[in-house]
Amino acid sequence: MNNLKKLSEILNGRLEGDPGFEIDVVNSLDNAGPAEIAIAVKPEMVTGKINAGALVVKENSGIRYKNLIYVEDPFIALSILISHFLPVERFSYGIGKYVTIADSASVGDDSSIGDHSYVGENVEIGKNCEIHSGVIIYNNVKIGENALIYSNVVIREDVVIGNSVVIQPGAVIGSDGFGFARDKSGKPLKIPQRGNVVIGDNCEIGANVCIDRSTLDTTLISDSVKIDNLVQIGHNVKVGESTSISAQSGISGSTEVGKNVIMAGQVGLADHIKIGDGVMIAAKAGISGNVKDKSIVAGIPQQDLMSWKRSQVILRNIEKYIEKIKILERKMEEK
Amino acid sequence: MNNLKKLSEILNGRLEGDPGFEIDVVNSLDNAGPAEIAIAVKPEMVTGKINAGALVVKENSGIRYKNLIYVEDPFIALSILISHFLPVERFSYGIGKYVTIADSASVGDDSSIGDHSYVGENVEIGKNCEIHSGVIIYNNVKIGENALIYSNVVIREDVVIGNSVVIQPGAVIGSDGFGFARDKSGKPLKIPQRGNVVIGDNCEIGANVCIDRSTLDTTLISDSVKIDNLVQIGHNVKVGESTSISAQSGISGSTEVGKNVIMAGQVGLADHIKIGDGVMIAAKAGISGNVKDKSIVAGIPQQDLMSWKRSQVILRNIEKYIEKIKILERKMEEK
Amino acid sequence: MNNLKKLSEILNGRLEGDPGFEIDVVNSLDNAGPAEIAIAVKPEMVTGKINAGALVVKENSGIRYKNLIYVEDPFIALSILISHFLPVERFSYGIGKYVTIADSASVGDDSSIGDHSYVGENVEIGKNCEIHSGVIIYNNVKIGENALIYSNVVIREDVVIGNSVVIQPGAVIGSDGFGFARDKSGKPLKIPQRGNVVIGDNCEIGANVCIDRSTLDTTLISDSVKIDNLVQIGHNVKVGESTSISAQSGISGSTEVGKNVIMAGQVGLADHIKIGDGVMIAAKAGISGNVKDKSIVAGIPQQDLMSWKRSQVILRNIEKYIEKIKILERKMEEK
Repeated sequence: MNNLKKLSEILNGRLEGDPGFEIDVVNSLDNAGPAEIAIAVKPEMVTGKINAGALVVKENSGIRYKNLIYVEDPFIALSILISHFLPVERFSYGIGKYVTIADSASVGDDSSIGDHSYVGENVEIGKNCEIHSGVIIYNNVKIGENALIYSNVVIREDVVIGNSVVIQPGAVIGSDGFGFARDKSGKPLKIPQRGNVVIGDNCEIGANVCIDRSTLDTTLISDSVKIDNLVQIGHNVKVGESTSISAQSGISGSTEVGKNVIMAGQVGLADHIKIGDGVMIAAKAGISGNVKDKSIVAGIPQQDLMSWKRSQVILRNIEKYIEKIKILERKMEEK
Repeated sequence: MNNLKKLSEILNGRLEGDPGFEIDVVNSLDNAGPAEIAIAVKPEMVTGKINAGALVVKENSGIRYKNLIYVEDPFIALSILISHFLPVERFSYGIGKYVTIADSASVGDDSSIGDHSYVGENVEIGKNCEIHSGVIIYNNVKIGENALIYSNVVIREDVVIGNSVVIQPGAVIGSDGFGFARDKSGKPLKIPQRGNVVIGDNCEIGANVCIDRSTLDTTLISDSVKIDNLVQIGHNVKVGESTSISAQSGISGSTEVGKNVIMAGQVGLADHIKIGDGVMIAAKAGISGNVKDKSIVAGIPQQDLMSWKRSQVILRNIEKYIEKIKILERKMEEK
Repeated sequence: MNNLKKLSEILNGRLEGDPGFEIDVVNSLDNAGPAEIAIAVKPEMVTGKINAGALVVKENSGIRYKNLIYVEDPFIALSILISHFLPVERFSYGIGKYVTIADSASVGDDSSIGDHSYVGENVEIGKNCEIHSGVIIYNNVKIGENALIYSNVVIREDVVIGNSVVIQPGAVIGSDGFGFARDKSGKPLKIPQRGNVVIGDNCEIGANVCIDRSTLDTTLISDSVKIDNLVQIGHNVKVGESTSISAQSGISGSTEVGKNVIMAGQVGLADHIKIGDGVMIAAKAGISGNVKDKSIVAGIPQQDLMSWKRSQVILRNIEKYIEKIKILERKMEEK
């Protein structure tokens, strides 16, 4: 029984339409059928092809439809609706088959360890964690409560993970930092990496991400940091709260990234620099120096986004400007 | 018994040389010995150092050698010759050790599951598949016939894979899309990702590739798509038939890529854009908007390849042009 | 008993301070306490906040402190101090649980194989190797002595690995190269990849790195090459001795990289090119052609680093120069 009145209440929204209209499920705008609800962000998205029974939209979005729920933030509404209609089933319970758990390790109540996983000496896993299959947890790792760790993740020794952390498959936490001295002949000599990684609460770590352990201290991922797939975090890096790092970006050693930073995809940060709070970095940017709080930057090396965009317009027309120079030279000769 | 007459027939080629000459194996041009065959693409590659017993070349390539087989496409010939002389041995038969297969799962005739692999509830695996070691297949996954899935691959719940798909080691199919709303305080709130991934027939997925599941619908990889190592495919992406994506490229959420597109390495595509059919994208390009059918593009953001190349020549000489401007200014002052 | 006299001898350094002063451990400059030693590279790093009991510095660095050990190279000193105070404990001994080792495989004395690992037919593993958990070693692989292979690494058939090689978690060695012919209709046709990968002595391979096997010959990683996380090495590539490749860089097929090359992060090399010895490549560079010995290059496509830097300064001011052109045009009209 999920009529629009109830859904409107769940979403803390304002209903315009039939309160008794029954909804089966949430779906995408393109695919939602007559008994389904979808979110719509812009009026032009609501074409004649839309068949949804009801839409969730932002107040003052100008969208018109037979059944509407107005909300403050449609993306938050989407999150709530998916959790409501399509809750994720727990994958595993208890301890699976072919599992190794060291005698000195502790696993909290209601936590599960999937098949073929390995839990090393002195590991502490909190309550209500779900560790899937093929997960390798080295010695002395600490994991808080409610962790969801997907298959084939590797967590190296001494790593500390907070509460409610999600780690997608194949991620590696605590690999050695890339630190080498060079002897007189130029041969690289390994600097052993004996620090650790600390991950705060409510973080998400994407698939096949690599987070290197510090040389001597801690590589720090603060609370609520969200890291997309195939991201590289170098040794001794510090990432501030609620920062979001998109796919295939990389942060070089000892760099500090502030709070609420948004890094788009394939961004690179040089080593030993500081990125301020609230900074936004455009896709593919290469940042070679410090960036002040709330800056919006793009380019290699970075510059202010607006000035980068103006430069790009000029560069697209650079042939015309070169032509102008040539004309000027000719005219100058003639005079 | 692989004499040149027989090989010429297998390759549907035209022989110029000794039909009875026996060949042991195919090898690279540099390393092929007197009883070996190699392909050569350009005349300048055939130097005095070449020892091959015979060469496969394209008609009208202008290459001269003691024994030649002329073919329409030397690369297709190479594919045929390697399959002929160096067939891949099947790695495994039957069900290995320490394997979990859920009672509700089905595994087709002549399919094998390697050691330490996991097959979840309701999984359906077709005939003649080869699943190697440490492969984790979550619930409700469907895999067609003739799949070749290398070790430590993870396939998340509800993923659908067609016939004759090859997945290299460490790839992750169906990881959560990177979708977060932000609450008023700026804290990220996860939008659960409950769609799936569908992979067509004859696809190849590279090592440590990540393909995210859709939020509510399907992330689609169409038939004959070839994906190189360390590529990232975001949620809700659609990739058209026979498209080829080189290493370390990334496609952001909801972007649609046409058929027969060729993406070089380290390319990035922004979210919610459309790339037409037959488009070619140069290495390292960053594509921020729609691209028309059959375009050839380069740069960040993208522009036509030829105009990008002309711009690059100018930029390499930009100091000279700036000097010209200064000279013009001086002369203008003088007049 | 680690007093400064002893440490100074271990480091082959010159002590200025109290020879009997006891040191507990090495630590980072910021975190070192009164009984700890740290390295310092620049005078400005030694502020009033430093609490270390002693510092290791370079001769003539101009750093002043209560206890100093002068050395030729502080980074080599750091490597020695960490090995001295914080030796890495061996993770595993003997053969673990749920392990498969083929009858035809050989494992050298004092080598260990962790839980859930798989060792295929005819594999040869030398003395004193440490193979961790979930490692999959395909048939005919040869591994020298003293290898340290972390969890969930996959090593495909026929790969040859030298002595004292370290492979971080999740790396894939010997995946198929990305080689496809196209039939007349444009459909990709796989060129089977039947060569191998050879890795020399003293190499380090980062987490989730991918190294593709050659089509017919060998993809070669020479002695002492250091490869950071998430790097892609294409098929038939040759990398020379002591070269260092930073995170997320990629080398396309058949390219040859010289000795002692330093590649920064997110660099891309085109296929079939040659990079000379001692070359340095700046982060994010895209190299499309050959590069001579000892060059220092940056940009997409590459140019000399200094000329790239000067161009960048001009591009940052490009609006001003365009304005100058417009002024010149106006003045020219007026005359």
